[in-house]
Amino acid sequence: MADKTVKKVVLAYSGGLDTSVILRWLQTEYNAEVVTFTADLGQGEELEPARRKAEMFGVKEIFVEDLRETFTKDFVFPMFRANALYEGQYLLGTSIARPLIAQRQIEIAELVGADAVAHGATGKGNDQVRFELAYYALKPDVRVIAPWREWDLTSRTRLLEFAEAHQIPIAKDKRGEAPFSVDANLLHSSSEGKLLEDPAEEPDEIVYQRTISPEAAPDVATVISIGFAQGDAVSINGETLSPATLLTRLNALGRDNGIGRLDLVENRFVGMKSRGVYETPGGTILLAAHRAIESITLDREAAHLKDSIMPRYAELIYNGFWFSPERHMLQALIDTSQHSVTGTVRLKLYKGNVIVIGRDSPHSLYSARMVTFEDDQGAYNQQDAAGFIKLNALRLRLGAAVGRRGGAL
Amino acid sequence: MADKTVKKVVLAYSGGLDTSVILRWLQTEYNAEVVTFTADLGQGEELEPARRKAEMFGVKEIFVEDLRETFTKDFVFPMFRANALYEGQYLLGTSIARPLIAQRQIEIAELVGADAVAHGATGKGNDQVRFELAYYALKPDVRVIAPWREWDLTSRTRLLEFAEAHQIPIAKDKRGEAPFSVDANLLHSSSEGKLLEDPAEEPDEIVYQRTISPEAAPDVATVISIGFAQGDAVSINGETLSPATLLTRLNALGRDNGIGRLDLVENRFVGMKSRGVYETPGGTILLAAHRAIESITLDREAAHLKDSIMPRYAELIYNGFWFSPERHMLQALIDTSQHSVTGTVRLKLYKGNVIVIGRDSPHSLYSARMVTFEDDQGAYNQQDAAGFIKLNALRLRLGAAVGRRGGAL
Amino acid sequence: MADKTVKKVVLAYSGGLDTSVILRWLQTEYNAEVVTFTADLGQGEELEPARRKAEMFGVKEIFVEDLRETFTKDFVFPMFRANALYEGQYLLGTSIARPLIAQRQIEIAELVGADAVAHGATGKGNDQVRFELAYYALKPDVRVIAPWREWDLTSRTRLLEFAEAHQIPIAKDKRGEAPFSVDANLLHSSSEGKLLEDPAEEPDEIVYQRTISPEAAPDVATVISIGFAQGDAVSINGETLSPATLLTRLNALGRDNGIGRLDLVENRFVGMKSRGVYETPGGTILLAAHRAIESITLDREAAHLKDSIMPRYAELIYNGFWFSPERHMLQALIDTSQHSVTGTVRLKLYKGNVIVIGRDSPHSLYSARMVTFEDDQGAYNQQDAAGFIKLNALRLRLGAAVGRRGGAL
Amino acid sequence: MADKTVKKVVLAYSGGLDTSVILRWLQTEYNAEVVTFTADLGQGEELEPARRKAEMFGVKEIFVEDLRETFTKDFVFPMFRANALYEGQYLLGTSIARPLIAQRQIEIAELVGADAVAHGATGKGNDQVRFELAYYALKPDVRVIAPWREWDLTSRTRLLEFAEAHQIPIAKDKRGEAPFSVDANLLHSSSEGKLLEDPAEEPDEIVYQRTISPEAAPDVATVISIGFAQGDAVSINGETLSPATLLTRLNALGRDNGIGRLDLVENRFVGMKSRGVYETPGGTILLAAHRAIESITLDREAAHLKDSIMPRYAELIYNGFWFSPERHMLQALIDTSQHSVTGTVRLKLYKGNVIVIGRDSPHSLYSARMVTFEDDQGAYNQQDAAGFIKLNALRLRLGAAVGRRGGAL
Repeated sequence: MADKTVKKVVLAYSGGLDTSVILRWLQTEYNAEVVTFTADLGQGEELEPARRKAEMFGVKEIFVEDLRETFTKDFVFPMFRANALYEGQYLLGTSIARPLIAQRQIEIAELVGADAVAHGATGKGNDQVRFELAYYALKPDVRVIAPWREWDLTSRTRLLEFAEAHQIPIAKDKRGEAPFSVDANLLHSSSEGKLLEDPAEEPDEIVYQRTISPEAAPDVATVISIGFAQGDAVSINGETLSPATLLTRLNALGRDNGIGRLDLVENRFVGMKSRGVYETPGGTILLAAHRAIESITLDREAAHLKDSIMPRYAELIYNGFWFSPERHMLQALIDTSQHSVTGTVRLKLYKGNVIVIGRDSPHSLYSARMVTFEDDQGAYNQQDAAGFIKLNALRLRLGAAVGRRGGAL
Repeated sequence: MADKTVKKVVLAYSGGLDTSVILRWLQTEYNAEVVTFTADLGQGEELEPARRKAEMFGVKEIFVEDLRETFTKDFVFPMFRANALYEGQYLLGTSIARPLIAQRQIEIAELVGADAVAHGATGKGNDQVRFELAYYALKPDVRVIAPWREWDLTSRTRLLEFAEAHQIPIAKDKRGEAPFSVDANLLHSSSEGKLLEDPAEEPDEIVYQRTISPEAAPDVATVISIGFAQGDAVSINGETLSPATLLTRLNALGRDNGIGRLDLVENRFVGMKSRGVYETPGGTILLAAHRAIESITLDREAAHLKDSIMPRYAELIYNGFWFSPERHMLQALIDTSQHSVTGTVRLKLYKGNVIVIGRDSPHSLYSARMVTFEDDQGAYNQQDAAGFIKLNALRLRLGAAVGRRGGAL
Repeated sequence: MADKTVKKVVLAYSGGLDTSVILRWLQTEYNAEVVTFTADLGQGEELEPARRKAEMFGVKEIFVEDLRETFTKDFVFPMFRANALYEGQYLLGTSIARPLIAQRQIEIAELVGADAVAHGATGKGNDQVRFELAYYALKPDVRVIAPWREWDLTSRTRLLEFAEAHQIPIAKDKRGEAPFSVDANLLHSSSEGKLLEDPAEEPDEIVYQRTISPEAAPDVATVISIGFAQGDAVSINGETLSPATLLTRLNALGRDNGIGRLDLVENRFVGMKSRGVYETPGGTILLAAHRAIESITLDREAAHLKDSIMPRYAELIYNGFWFSPERHMLQALIDTSQHSVTGTVRLKLYKGNVIVIGRDSPHSLYSARMVTFEDDQGAYNQQDAAGFIKLNALRLRLGAAVGRRGGAL
Repeated sequence: MADKTVKKVVLAYSGGLDTSVILRWLQTEYNAEVVTFTADLGQGEELEPARRKAEMFGVKEIFVEDLRETFTKDFVFPMFRANALYEGQYLLGTSIARPLIAQRQIEIAELVGADAVAHGATGKGNDQVRFELAYYALKPDVRVIAPWREWDLTSRTRLLEFAEAHQIPIAKDKRGEAPFSVDANLLHSSSEGKLLEDPAEEPDEIVYQRTISPEAAPDVATVISIGFAQGDAVSINGETLSPATLLTRLNALGRDNGIGRLDLVENRFVGMKSRGVYETPGGTILLAAHRAIESITLDREAAHLKDSIMPRYAELIYNGFWFSPERHMLQALIDTSQHSVTGTVRLKLYKGNVIVIGRDSPHSLYSARMVTFEDDQGAYNQQDAAGFIKLNALRLRLGAAVGRRGGAL
């Protein structure tokens, strides 16, 4: 049995049934004063109901904050500078939100003098790891309470019984079991569990919350341009926008064109495979655009070095190591590369497709004169290629000369 | 001036105007006996005209070969086991064909006793490197002739004058300059140069040869299944197919659904950026399917290790190091991982989209019992997560305890 | 409290006090039949006393095995093909022994129908991880008992009390606390703990068990030659030797010349730093010799690829992932590289130094003709270097031309 | 024939015979005004004779500079932060000096309005690449003259004839051929060629210039301490020293104790293997000390990340890409890691050995309380290890459960 001597605990509180049960459970089981923290990360829900519910539970210190700009500027954008994709495909929408929530919980804990923090993530998933690694990295002596790993409310029935016994209001549609579980923020929404547990079966259309299907999208393409400055998107169609406003606009553009759906079996940090359905409409557009602006502004080896460390960077974020020395080091490498990643990308959005149709930059390294099939006026001496090839081939020739043909070892 | 004492040279001969000029130029300038080698790699052209033209030029040893199965089985498929993408996007369609052509040229040179080989690649591109690295790796003392780096036929006008002076037939549509340059094989077609030299401009629809546009594709999705055995695709919709036949079918499916277009600014090995338009209809489907079957059959760390070495593997192939010790070593690593990559993937093809809608395998590592939100009957002990997190956090806590909060260094 | 329904358990048994206490504790606390497994991995102790002790405790199935050849051939040598060093310095002597012990325990468990295995590693170290990851990888449903994490014999006093209460003989020198803890096998001996816990203090000379000090070593160098075949050492001074015999000889040579001491602060997988003193006399010689034979037989890029994956390979072994997909994949890459790593290395051993003084191979890639300052008779055309440099510089020049001098980004 | 329209050329001038011949050759063959640049990088030679010789040749603009502090502070120390070793062994002493010389040549060229630069490196080595890549990266339109690749003075005899014909004084000991070639600076001296061309033969003792042999070193160890601040060495035995002074002292300490000799077959960037004998007395001590201070101050994953990119970083410097985007990016990553690498290391220097005997830091991450075998007062909960192992094992167990035992794929 966990040690229950906790005085004050900061709970990441959504206002939903599950975290309301947690709130009450912390009050009754731990006899602790609960401080609630509810953040708007762009999940698309009203926050005021969460405040009112917290008040109803007698919470005295209630924090309700709009973190959309911070989230986009300090978490989403740095990650997109890396073109991060977990396992080649996943844009890390859930992973990137956890460190910010955890950071604010710790800041609030220090502000209000709380000795503990609590979250509503289950014991099987990645989110518990992400929350807790961030807590510990920021406040090494903090007490962490993870009710889902501790309590005995392990079935839906018992959870509802607890809720009823403690006067926790239950929305009608929460009486039955949800057919799948959802997480959402400004970058994405994810769905997993139950209905989605068989990876051989296509997800039902009802799963999708953020996007219309490619089939339902307009028959005519939408053309947009995105402006970048030093690696970050700063404008759409010439209009300068704040980070969160920009991402919100891209989400709308993506949603309307059926962009950003992903049905994936991925590998969790805790060791098993899971199946998730992700919708990242704006992020999908942003990744394509960022790669395109890098394609003309980034040196080859700079780009290849970024590509070579990207899988590790993405893995770190997925696993919850945002607040780690190695993430800071990789971020320094990545950020150093972005000084000239400035310019404009034009894109065509059409029924699930993001098609780059133009890139332009004041810092372009693309030289038409160098590459042309036409007369290049001496920009490039084709004779140089002969020596270049000869010396690149030298070790292969020396190998073949002693019997190791074709690169045999 | 290059040393011109060559007796017999094996030319990679397409039958087109350029390589016909090269053929005649080798005969006249080098006074060498030319042996032609013309391969069907799925470029979609008749080969017999090349034979007849070679005969017309007095070539005595003419090799015309259908290499589509070898190309797919021994080059394309091993590369797809790695999920190889150059610079995150390019499926390496041109790069992967060059080593096979070079290999056959060297084999033929040894068969007919030739002391030299020649190719028609220019001095600015990657293909000269790919051809010549392969030549040297396979036959270190071979003499390589790269006419485009040597001769003075540097303008279209002079080339045509040479052709006329030497009775080389010029197709009417070759009189004028082609608006762009094309390379094609069973995996892809690429277009570059001239019309495409401004990366700020969208390619004209006439550039596309292999695919209809997403807009022109059917309004109804096509659903297919692809079967894999040990990492390679072996069947479509349950029908077992040879490698080249399978890829040909996928190409048709991709073409009809507007799949596999890519407009890219890439970094050449010889040092400049270039803009290419690629069409890889079947390959684009194959990559998505291979990743999907791996997602349920490959261990997490095996998959991550593959992802971490993939950029280097792709770079090697792009740069022309197929026949190198390091490619063999990486291939050994990759192939070792594929023993259980067996099963079936279902896909929806729709207007440019390749959407995975199901994966199934007798060797699946996905365990619904392990991951379920429901009662897992003890498959997973949620308490284990607490210790797992604690020890993963330990170094972060020790750091924070001495003042390095949040992973500060 | 751990579930105690175990019928039969295979214990890794050294015959010493600690594992004798474990043996009895398993019999009394678990009421389980204990099967002992005692292996000679070259730790330099008699095994028969362990057998007699086990008999004394009423153990019916006793396994005593000499695994020195298997250990060297199938574990040490494959690892040395990789030039593996953990954190740049540690030759992984303890890490590499654990998987073999675990493997035999599992094989014996299956042979005798045991449902559990047990080891004597503590809850703070790496060895518990190495044992248990191997157990689980080989027999996923095995029950693992780690007494040091379970029991209440947490002080030396209580352990001795238990021993006395259960008629376990206690050697006189074990009454007091050992001043440090030792692990040994044919590859190395390690010392850690207590006396060594302050990394600011030099280890006392009494810590060293396997080597004399450089100061005490002879004033005259010993010159030896080591023969390699396909990456593995096969002979010393021309005499072909079995793997374990060879390593034993190298250990003697190293010991006598004060070679192979290492005083290190390292990072454990479980999250803290620890200080260890290692003695790897033969292994230190072997690493130098293997690098030397590779230096003339391995292609540059093959060598660099090996170097680039080595830290990860070493980390895997250190962390206990010998029996993992990723170790198998990396091993395939490494082994592929060793086909021509054959030849002879001459070395001078002198007071702690291992000095390479000659390398020779029938497969040497070193070409005196190519490298000579003298006339090379056309082996190398210095003009090629100009083109090689020009194209390697091209991207840097294009960058500098748009204002990014000196590789600025 | 190279284009010879050069007006003014900045020559890297040592004052020795070879660069004196180059100086005169540039004057006569190119009819160019030559500006000489002679730098003291710690090679241990007088610079004034070079000035007088340059005057004798009628050079009007003569630059003689002491760059030892810049060399150590801005080139050697940043490199040592990475623990850089090329091919696992070489401390890059020659490689790291070239970019600084090239940088000053370009700065001088811009100062004096020169259109060209020239160096005395041969066409077979790495140094030509290092000089020229740096030139081009800093001044993309510069004209580079590499006399050894251009002229016809390809034998010693012809070089001496040219010298005599042009009144170039020839030191008596330069009449005959030197038995090997030497490069030296404050970090190291290297010897290669002729006498050293057979890698099966031990170098003669006369080759060594910087160190006495281990055999000749004192029979009593020298104990020193080195202080570090933010990754750089700042003091010896408590005395704060400038970078170059510190390295000079370490060189003396290393020389007197027979430390820092390396006899290596390495792989050149231009494609062949070569054999070099290096002496890096101070650098060898510095590397050991830096690793030791990192061992207690650097987080595990920070250290492992550094180790994983180190081979690539070292390769970049070896190949001449100091002034490249990718080197700047990696440097940013490395420098970020060094903020807390502060403290003191004690070392014993004895007959070729550098033995760490103590490390201490105000930012130490080593926690005796955490690691102790004694009672740790709850710092570490051994139960956590069980969960840690269980979840790390989960994927291996899932694999074994479907028949992939022991990490089989």
